Amino acid sequence: MGIVMGPNQYGKSECRIVTINRDSSRHTIKDLNVSTALRGDFDETHYTGDNAKVLPTDTQKNTVYALAKEQSVGEIEDFATRLGRHFIDTQEPVKGARILVEEYAWERIPVSGTGHDHSFARSSDEKRTTAVTIDGSETHVVSGLKDLVVLKSTGSEFWGYPKDRFTTLAETDDRILATAVTARWRYLHTDVDWAKSFESVRETMLETFATTHSYALQQSLYEMGKAVLEKHPEVAEVRMSLPNKHHFLVDMQQFGLENNNEVFFAADRPYGLIEGTVSRDDVEEAPKAWYSLPEF
Amino acid sequence: MGIVMGPNQYGKSECRIVTINRDSSRHTIKDLNVSTALRGDFDETHYTGDNAKVLPTDTQKNTVYALAKEQSVGEIEDFATRLGRHFIDTQEPVKGARILVEEYAWERIPVSGTGHDHSFARSSDEKRTTAVTIDGSETHVVSGLKDLVVLKSTGSEFWGYPKDRFTTLAETDDRILATAVTARWRYLHTDVDWAKSFESVRETMLETFATTHSYALQQSLYEMGKAVLEKHPEVAEVRMSLPNKHHFLVDMQQFGLENNNEVFFAADRPYGLIEGTVSRDDVEEAPKAWYSLPEF
Amino acid sequence: MGIVMGPNQYGKSECRIVTINRDSSRHTIKDLNVSTALRGDFDETHYTGDNAKVLPTDTQKNTVYALAKEQSVGEIEDFATRLGRHFIDTQEPVKGARILVEEYAWERIPVSGTGHDHSFARSSDEKRTTAVTIDGSETHVVSGLKDLVVLKSTGSEFWGYPKDRFTTLAETDDRILATAVTARWRYLHTDVDWAKSFESVRETMLETFATTHSYALQQSLYEMGKAVLEKHPEVAEVRMSLPNKHHFLVDMQQFGLENNNEVFFAADRPYGLIEGTVSRDDVEEAPKAWYSLPEF
Amino acid sequence: MGIVMGPNQYGKSECRIVTINRDSSRHTIKDLNVSTALRGDFDETHYTGDNAKVLPTDTQKNTVYALAKEQSVGEIEDFATRLGRHFIDTQEPVKGARILVEEYAWERIPVSGTGHDHSFARSSDEKRTTAVTIDGSETHVVSGLKDLVVLKSTGSEFWGYPKDRFTTLAETDDRILATAVTARWRYLHTDVDWAKSFESVRETMLETFATTHSYALQQSLYEMGKAVLEKHPEVAEVRMSLPNKHHFLVDMQQFGLENNNEVFFAADRPYGLIEGTVSRDDVEEAPKAWYSLPEF
Repeated sequence: MGIVMGPNQYGKSECRIVTINRDSSRHTIKDLNVSTALRGDFDETHYTGDNAKVLPTDTQKNTVYALAKEQSVGEIEDFATRLGRHFIDTQEPVKGARILVEEYAWERIPVSGTGHDHSFARSSDEKRTTAVTIDGSETHVVSGLKDLVVLKSTGSEFWGYPKDRFTTLAETDDRILATAVTARWRYLHTDVDWAKSFESVRETMLETFATTHSYALQQSLYEMGKAVLEKHPEVAEVRMSLPNKHHFLVDMQQFGLENNNEVFFAADRPYGLIEGTVSRDDVEEAPKAWYSLPEF
Repeated sequence: MGIVMGPNQYGKSECRIVTINRDSSRHTIKDLNVSTALRGDFDETHYTGDNAKVLPTDTQKNTVYALAKEQSVGEIEDFATRLGRHFIDTQEPVKGARILVEEYAWERIPVSGTGHDHSFARSSDEKRTTAVTIDGSETHVVSGLKDLVVLKSTGSEFWGYPKDRFTTLAETDDRILATAVTARWRYLHTDVDWAKSFESVRETMLETFATTHSYALQQSLYEMGKAVLEKHPEVAEVRMSLPNKHHFLVDMQQFGLENNNEVFFAADRPYGLIEGTVSRDDVEEAPKAWYSLPEF
Repeated sequence: MGIVMGPNQYGKSECRIVTINRDSSRHTIKDLNVSTALRGDFDETHYTGDNAKVLPTDTQKNTVYALAKEQSVGEIEDFATRLGRHFIDTQEPVKGARILVEEYAWERIPVSGTGHDHSFARSSDEKRTTAVTIDGSETHVVSGLKDLVVLKSTGSEFWGYPKDRFTTLAETDDRILATAVTARWRYLHTDVDWAKSFESVRETMLETFATTHSYALQQSLYEMGKAVLEKHPEVAEVRMSLPNKHHFLVDMQQFGLENNNEVFFAADRPYGLIEGTVSRDDVEEAPKAWYSLPEF
Repeated sequence: MGIVMGPNQYGKSECRIVTINRDSSRHTIKDLNVSTALRGDFDETHYTGDNAKVLPTDTQKNTVYALAKEQSVGEIEDFATRLGRHFIDTQEPVKGARILVEEYAWERIPVSGTGHDHSFARSSDEKRTTAVTIDGSETHVVSGLKDLVVLKSTGSEFWGYPKDRFTTLAETDDRILATAVTARWRYLHTDVDWAKSFESVRETMLETFATTHSYALQQSLYEMGKAVLEKHPEVAEVRMSLPNKHHFLVDMQQFGLENNNEVFFAADRPYGLIEGTVSRDDVEEAPKAWYSLPEF
């Protein structure tokens, strides 16, 4: 028997980079959080501390900033791909890379009804994300969104579930349904208008959440994934993680008040967690695209 | 010499309450975080554990929910005032109350171009706040906003400061200026259209931040406060806490690249912190309105 | 009527500094979070953006690191005092300073039963704190601790409180009492063995919390403060903020189980919040010592 | 082509449970965060909203509390296994379960030198963890620890790495090495004294981190994993995620001061992230044990 180094990766996490495009006096802003991870032939550093093949994470960080200067960042999928390819193409021991990017949105501050040229306010806490995995010559793009908090004040039921001796939940035909959507979708190829596809996927998810009369958060998840796949031939599969952000109706009978689905306690923990994948039945799986990302 | 109980208060913090107005099929939503604090004659519970005068914080929480049912919540300043008065009017030992409310904003999810009747998405992470202090018959309203993150990509300079042996900062006539505004403003009276005043104060702050060519964050702070006071006779003073969210220009000379204010590292800690009050010179101070709130 | 700049301060917040004493091969470590705030004659920067009197926060940060090198940091009260005095003594416009320090504790990693010379593990999340305020020639030291989480599994009751129509809480003669202690105590003078005083105050608080049969968290607060003052003539007053971290007994009657104070749900929000000051009746108040700190 | 539901799971996350053993007046405490996830035949709820096979997450939560009452919790690995088996054995559609548990440590408050019977203080922020996956009759136990923050003030070098045009990092033969260990290790079977094994694995990791003269954090990772496997025949593999918590030496040359590895700036972001698996070369892989956990 021997003890050996198994799968490993290393990189610089959470490089916070802001770029300003100053081509005209009407500036634009990109605000990103970039994490690099390199894979390859790194046995020696683990076994002996020999770093001859280890591009420092400090250099990886510098590279993030330098590549953002050498060419306009553009869409995060393209920027992540350029970064990953750079490391593989310039460092012989690097055989693969996984680049994660989160993008924060900004809006122009309105002044007398018009967006200001160079003054911005942060939009919602929602993030656009991508995870680009390059393995030799293969490139996998898994894009997504995070922290999109949504709520239906009606149009949600929950009943017909099994009861056992530990059941206390009452069935209901009218409840608040709220969640914070984390979604990732895998692209079938890279010939995609990333920004347009992102906006359309996001809009489809929101519309489907809004218009689905829901009997279970699982059903909403499936409907959202299905609608995305129906409208987006470029997408192979969608994975979602949907916390059920419980809003409990406050019992006011003891106060002599009737609470007709009007006043709720928004609870923190525990929360339901519904996770699932919606996919096409005729596409091959791509485990490398998801490797070391949370499965769902 | 004796040891005595000094100033004290107690209450229930962070009651998360969501109310749905279902008067029509076009629902509206209020999403609040309410914290109560009662002041009064509570020596006995401290000295002996006799709770005869201590309205439990659990009951205070129930009251938050019940009062939200008995009458529509309305504006947070009004709701906080009703809550505070309720405790003082119904519990003899309670002589004062300080009610804090944070409000989270939601937008209707657009479906085919129209906002949905009962499906919502959380807007920005920014919060609208109020701190209502009632002391006997006096009522003080200090409203505000929190976590409004703003950035100017130009129009900000910083130079002309004193140098000493520990100075390393280079002067600049073009830098990014970014902050997360926390502001509180005190109203001179309570005969105010709270929602309208809030919107106008917020808009004034944003516009002034955007249009002020800034030589120091302190100057932006003063200009923002001054503009608010000039437009809002109902406001006595404005206090702001402005972290200077540093965006450091990445030095790329070693890479053979020239970085013309295009690529920045957004730092976490440390950060500058600029705090100050802008007030009218002819209004009386109201220390009770600010008591046990952060000073600035 | 005119609009004027009121009270203000500015500085660098959260300078994270770690110092290693390498005088012998048995290293010692200090791990601090330092925030500076300067007060003085800063009207011009607010009114006009003239920074001639504004020592940059970047220089303040450099000063934190440099002074930690010029003389061993020592106790945080002494370090904060040296920092505050430095700014006042070297910058004419600076009339006052408020220096906040948080200290994180480390323990030596045990190797074969002995603490290692230069390898450490972070202890509890609890922090030791100080807030030193210098106003001209006056120096006020308010030290404290934060995030000391404690729990009594019995020896806590809560009953005898007023009931009203919103009361639902049942009285109890046996409950879990848990809190996260934030305490600040003001010293009467600066001729104190800071480390020894801190350890003794902390131990006194812990022992008193443990041994007090509690009828209300308010009573525990008072007893803790009183015990500190009785043993520490150098302390003028103690302020505490004690969240009541509720542990709700899980009702298992429906499951046919009897839960005899054995299984609890630890709730997040809302939480009770008990705040108060315990002081000597023969010492003068020192509002400057507490200025712009939370009151309690 | 069709659109289908792929892998999915659902459950209740972050059930915060505290149990008190009151068998004697010397109480003991268990403080856990439990997350359940069920796998099985749940297509209908996704496709149609039919919940006939969906044990509500609310009932799962109740079950966590009830099972903690029916039998003493004991070690988290045993409790998680009982929970998982309960769901599979009592709900026909449930084919598998993955139970996550985090345990928070408490110490007795010392009173006159002796630990108090029923008063406790939270220890370090470090957590003991387990992830038990049951798939039909197979049971996989992956235990671990989280947020164990460690630091070496010397005995760490970093040099000999490749340089490119983006390299700015200087080589060093003496630096601070600090990390927050997240580790998970897979057990080969379940006939283990869990508490004893955990304590021994933890101690081995700490000792190895302390005594390894490190040329790269990767090397420390491997040595820690190897030492664990050498001493623990019950462990098949160890996965670690080690953020490199950078402590940058502050350059004081401009201040006329020499900083001999004494004063450091502790940075937040970005941070290096070193992830890897150390395993035996003669054991089979167990992808199910790690499924939907982060890979490393």
